[in-house]
Amino acid sequence: MGQKFDAFQSRITDILNLQRASGILSWDMETKMPEAAQVARGSQLETLSRVTHQMILDEETSQRLLEAADEVKDAEYDSFEASLVRIARQDLEDAVKLPTEFVAEFARLTTEGHYRWAEARAKNDFSIFQPALEKIVQMSRQKAEYLGYAQSPYDALLGEYERSLSTAQVQAIFDEHKGQLVDLVAAIKAKGDVIDPNIITQAYPLDGQKELSLWAADAIGYDFTRGRLDESVHPFSTSFSKNDARITTRYSLNWLPSSLFGTLHECGHAMYEQGIADQLEGTILGSGTSLSVHESQSRSWENMVGRSRGFWHWAFPKIADIFPDQLRGVDAETFYKAVNRVNPSFIRVEADECTYNLHIMLRFEIEQRMINGDVAVKDVPALWNELFKQYLGITPDSDANGCLQDIHWSMGGIGYFATYALGNLLGAQYFNRAKQDIPTLEDEIAKGNFTLLLRWQNENLHQYGRKFNTLELTQRVCGEGIQSRDYIAYLTGKFSDIYGL
Amino acid sequence: MGQKFDAFQSRITDILNLQRASGILSWDMETKMPEAAQVARGSQLETLSRVTHQMILDEETSQRLLEAADEVKDAEYDSFEASLVRIARQDLEDAVKLPTEFVAEFARLTTEGHYRWAEARAKNDFSIFQPALEKIVQMSRQKAEYLGYAQSPYDALLGEYERSLSTAQVQAIFDEHKGQLVDLVAAIKAKGDVIDPNIITQAYPLDGQKELSLWAADAIGYDFTRGRLDESVHPFSTSFSKNDARITTRYSLNWLPSSLFGTLHECGHAMYEQGIADQLEGTILGSGTSLSVHESQSRSWENMVGRSRGFWHWAFPKIADIFPDQLRGVDAETFYKAVNRVNPSFIRVEADECTYNLHIMLRFEIEQRMINGDVAVKDVPALWNELFKQYLGITPDSDANGCLQDIHWSMGGIGYFATYALGNLLGAQYFNRAKQDIPTLEDEIAKGNFTLLLRWQNENLHQYGRKFNTLELTQRVCGEGIQSRDYIAYLTGKFSDIYGL
Repeated sequence: MGQKFDAFQSRITDILNLQRASGILSWDMETKMPEAAQVARGSQLETLSRVTHQMILDEETSQRLLEAADEVKDAEYDSFEASLVRIARQDLEDAVKLPTEFVAEFARLTTEGHYRWAEARAKNDFSIFQPALEKIVQMSRQKAEYLGYAQSPYDALLGEYERSLSTAQVQAIFDEHKGQLVDLVAAIKAKGDVIDPNIITQAYPLDGQKELSLWAADAIGYDFTRGRLDESVHPFSTSFSKNDARITTRYSLNWLPSSLFGTLHECGHAMYEQGIADQLEGTILGSGTSLSVHESQSRSWENMVGRSRGFWHWAFPKIADIFPDQLRGVDAETFYKAVNRVNPSFIRVEADECTYNLHIMLRFEIEQRMINGDVAVKDVPALWNELFKQYLGITPDSDANGCLQDIHWSMGGIGYFATYALGNLLGAQYFNRAKQDIPTLEDEIAKGNFTLLLRWQNENLHQYGRKFNTLELTQRVCGEGIQSRDYIAYLTGKFSDIYGL
Repeated sequence: MGQKFDAFQSRITDILNLQRASGILSWDMETKMPEAAQVARGSQLETLSRVTHQMILDEETSQRLLEAADEVKDAEYDSFEASLVRIARQDLEDAVKLPTEFVAEFARLTTEGHYRWAEARAKNDFSIFQPALEKIVQMSRQKAEYLGYAQSPYDALLGEYERSLSTAQVQAIFDEHKGQLVDLVAAIKAKGDVIDPNIITQAYPLDGQKELSLWAADAIGYDFTRGRLDESVHPFSTSFSKNDARITTRYSLNWLPSSLFGTLHECGHAMYEQGIADQLEGTILGSGTSLSVHESQSRSWENMVGRSRGFWHWAFPKIADIFPDQLRGVDAETFYKAVNRVNPSFIRVEADECTYNLHIMLRFEIEQRMINGDVAVKDVPALWNELFKQYLGITPDSDANGCLQDIHWSMGGIGYFATYALGNLLGAQYFNRAKQDIPTLEDEIAKGNFTLLLRWQNENLHQYGRKFNTLELTQRVCGEGIQSRDYIAYLTGKFSDIYGL
């Protein structure tokens, strides 16, 4: 392309590289850094973040954007040049909307909020977190004003995590399947607790779990020559290049799913990053397009593959080989059912596939009410428990296991949760499309051949990086927007079979 | 202090934090990063380096320096404020002397040079590296002109690594002990090869070496809660805070010293960083003052402690416990002698204490001749072998084991080597001073008590960080400048005893 485009691209590559440097420092902090270095690392990250923000705000950046946009104005919408300018413009416009001082104050507040939340959760005392959360809600409203919105302030907050959908659209999608989930869970519950939870909750020595995680990640196609697996308190995936997409997991003695399905989940995220087109490598287009689409990939590998009957009929000999004592007398079918036990419970991250989206809808509703001022922060615990009873049929035994369980609000992440549920829906839509394109897909998975699915994802989703937003991508792949039919059909089919509904 | 000082300090803290971010990315690259990510990491480091350099060149930085300098002009020389302004001024003055374009071109040249060197060494063919080295020498001369010098261009290059000494001073120090080393080595050689090399060169399984390295590092006082030990191809230490001073080592099946003494060596570097005063943490004064003083600490722990009789009479049961098969029938005294075998050999990094400085003097002489134009690059291999024969009595069997063995020139590091030899000398001077202050020091070491030495180093050397330069620090501690008497006396005493001279 032309000189102006190149000049702009080199500028935003610098911004991207600084952001990725922050990412590397954060990865190190979570996995390798001695705890004693927290203050020093905080200062290093603060400098990086400020220098990055200054470069975004720099007049030269906007000047170069204008010149580049003019130079590529006739390029096709999905060309590299037009896409880069389009996405960069959105990024820069978003970034300059928040005053530097506001960003700094919000960062201080959420640092404080994080400590308050951790203490409140540890002591099961919401009142410790309440003042911080009140300020976070207040500043989030302020943030929405800075960001701007079409209908409700919550649109702006949601838009920080999912650009292509409004609150009303997400609400409609949630409304269309909430009742179906509630009914499905009730039908399963009516069958009684027919699956033995002990198969999963017995002790699995950590060394074996590590071996299993490494084996499973490799088996499904996570490329260890372009990534690595480490341990961290909170599992995550992070990417600094399509050739450096890392994952972490956590090993819990009496909760095998944490490492096993957690690893498959993070692999799904990282395989997305590893699958982006070479042309986009090192550019701002070279990462996943949105949290929702990212979650569709992680949830597909975790659940639609990792919790499928085919997978376990193929993989069971391996796990039985690693854990002969634990799995003596257990067969593949029993194990398959054990990892799919439906059981309404308090904790989102341990939720089964049927109840998971209900956990999200509850948060989505409470967040909107907090932002709109329809509920006072002090009344959130009561509202949480009331809605929980409505959606899941049980009442949390404590605020620690209720409205204090998630870290997100304490970090200012109001608007984030919806992307988890949208990811489940998109995962089903994409998986169905893949099955249409590859009729033998599930048979291949049952033989341990995951290449066909990964290649399909590479071609239809991954390669485009950030070129298309969630809706554009879904439209291209599925010929329609986000819907819940596929997910509900998937759940109904799978769990009717398991529970004999 | 005042506002102007604070403003300047916050500015140079940003610069420091960006440099440390680069350090973290480099550590990650050498220890954890998938190889496939090299191009991406190169781009990230390039951005960080450029952004850092721009901030150094920024007029606001020099403006703030002037204002801060004026504000603290009456502060004591060794006060925090005066020291910070003084050292920052030196750093900034040095950094702005080289034009940005020159720095970039030199970086490109040495990247290329590094590949040429690696290929030349692998193929034992100096001609592959020669053109690149010719350009590196040429650009180093140019660099010297930019940097400025009092007497010879080499002064400027040496000054990049050791600010407080001129070429003539280093030459004088080298000249005063070169002959003594040559004589000592000759006297030892005349005794015949009385120490069995097999004790060291037999196979030591890597797991045991790892256990030993971790144990030894912990034993001498390296604080693992403020650091960590990893593996890398080339061992190094690096620090991002006094609370995050990391080391690496390398495990070689048939060369135990690589991991054992390599680890102690890197611990010496890291314990220096860990011992810096809290007041200097997070500031530009908060790291070791120079490569020479740094090397004095690493060499002290590696050799004066780690290769001492007292150490091995205390530590031998541990190593014999880890390697019972290898050390069956060996006693502490025999092992002590084995790790002190003097044997002129081709490779610097494997050299014993008696021959080590001779390896350096040879490089020091050749570097000066290259820079002064007294030897053409094409004639370096012949000159190397000629001097090697003169100093060490043997002729390298190949250029790969001769003038191609070190990475330094290929990276543009002409001027660096001298600091290794100066470190040996300083190590002996400081150790003697410590023995005067603590008469029981060696007895304590022989009991496995290393706290007295480390505390002495903390108080007399480490705490000051970069406040004092090499000469100032040495003058404070020893009441004199650098000399070789103490090192020669140490070697003569130790090796006369071992070899019965």
